[in-house]
Amino acid sequence: MPNPTAAMLVIGDEILSGRTRDANMHHLAGELTKHGVDLKEVRVVSDDPDAITTAVQALSAGYDHVFTSGGIGPTHDDITADNVARAFGRPIDVRDDARAILAAHYEKTGHDLNDARLRMARVPEGATLIDNPISAAPGFTIENVHVMAGVPTIFMTMVASVLPTLSGGAPLLSQSLRIYRGEGDIAGPLSALADKYADLSIGSYPFQQDGAFGAHIVIRGADGAQVDAAMAELNGMFEA
Amino acid sequence: MPNPTAAMLVIGDEILSGRTRDANMHHLAGELTKHGVDLKEVRVVSDDPDAITTAVQALSAGYDHVFTSGGIGPTHDDITADNVARAFGRPIDVRDDARAILAAHYEKTGHDLNDARLRMARVPEGATLIDNPISAAPGFTIENVHVMAGVPTIFMTMVASVLPTLSGGAPLLSQSLRIYRGEGDIAGPLSALADKYADLSIGSYPFQQDGAFGAHIVIRGADGAQVDAAMAELNGMFEA
Repeated sequence: MPNPTAAMLVIGDEILSGRTRDANMHHLAGELTKHGVDLKEVRVVSDDPDAITTAVQALSAGYDHVFTSGGIGPTHDDITADNVARAFGRPIDVRDDARAILAAHYEKTGHDLNDARLRMARVPEGATLIDNPISAAPGFTIENVHVMAGVPTIFMTMVASVLPTLSGGAPLLSQSLRIYRGEGDIAGPLSALADKYADLSIGSYPFQQDGAFGAHIVIRGADGAQVDAAMAELNGMFEA
Repeated sequence: MPNPTAAMLVIGDEILSGRTRDANMHHLAGELTKHGVDLKEVRVVSDDPDAITTAVQALSAGYDHVFTSGGIGPTHDDITADNVARAFGRPIDVRDDARAILAAHYEKTGHDLNDARLRMARVPEGATLIDNPISAAPGFTIENVHVMAGVPTIFMTMVASVLPTLSGGAPLLSQSLRIYRGEGDIAGPLSALADKYADLSIGSYPFQQDGAFGAHIVIRGADGAQVDAAMAELNGMFEA
């Protein structure tokens, strides 16, 4: 059975303007691979209602799981929750369980639970909350979409809460070999190897470093014996 | 007149598996902002013919410019050029001018221009070449799509070649203020400011650092006087 598929949606003008370098995509990609879920697509969109709604609908329909990051804080530019609700035609309002979590947190830290902070308790009808051990304001799961914070430490803890609840497939195994020849010299035999092992993914990633150059060849697949066999052939091909 | 819009398409399994951290998105985002082009969307897709073709068609139709990175090397997993050609229904083959560039480069470096390397001279009919001063193999522009290498140093030089050929808009100006209060405390007045200056984009980006916390407020816009005025009001609001 093929692995479940996933997409990620990163929401935020600050990424698209170049002000902030996204860190969450790389983290999620690694965690999904370990968990046996194939990340197939990532989209980055701006803090724009239609852009968010359209992307949520397209990705939710196209993949088994969707993970979003960003736009669930208390300020006016945090519009993710409302537009995820809109994507599914669900009402959204402050929910009692989410309000209780925030009230307890702000009482402990000595802050007011004012209108702005209360925005973070807005949850679409029928959603399940995702725990936020760092700053309390929860994420949520609605249908197959997991809505999480953009702050990297919080995003990471939310991913850690969500992943064990998903049924993953076989983790993707990978082995790699560093070959000190130009890609143009190894491309022919490599292509033949890829044809022979059609169930494996064989990638070639060129490098240049300290005057040396070559390519990392990465062989990936769910079947360890196949990966071993292909790697043995690869080694044989390019022994000095 | 509004600025021209752009999208980016990153092509590569290695990004989606978490093996490689993409560096090109952040670079392109910053360069486009300086050049007055608004980056509106980024997509990352795998080395899959249909995924590439579908994304190229959608982004080319939706934005003024599309920049792709990755998948134009000599190996079997480099399928970008063929699928960009397919997206526009154009024939693709080895082109004489591209072949001549490669032949000259490999003669100088003492390598064979074999079949694998010759793949890098495959260019869709009607495309314009993009110069590659580092490793010779050219990128190309077809319709509004600029097809560039994934290796960051080569990507950067190709971006530098392409940008001056585009007509940009007014560069986006930005000013920022660091406020040492919780986002929940500043969200109300900030929202009022955003309503007053509807032509500006006002973003709030929380931070936590060395035990202190607060938010960077960034005000962006093409009209410097407006940005100055809004920033002066913001300063007034949060003076100690």
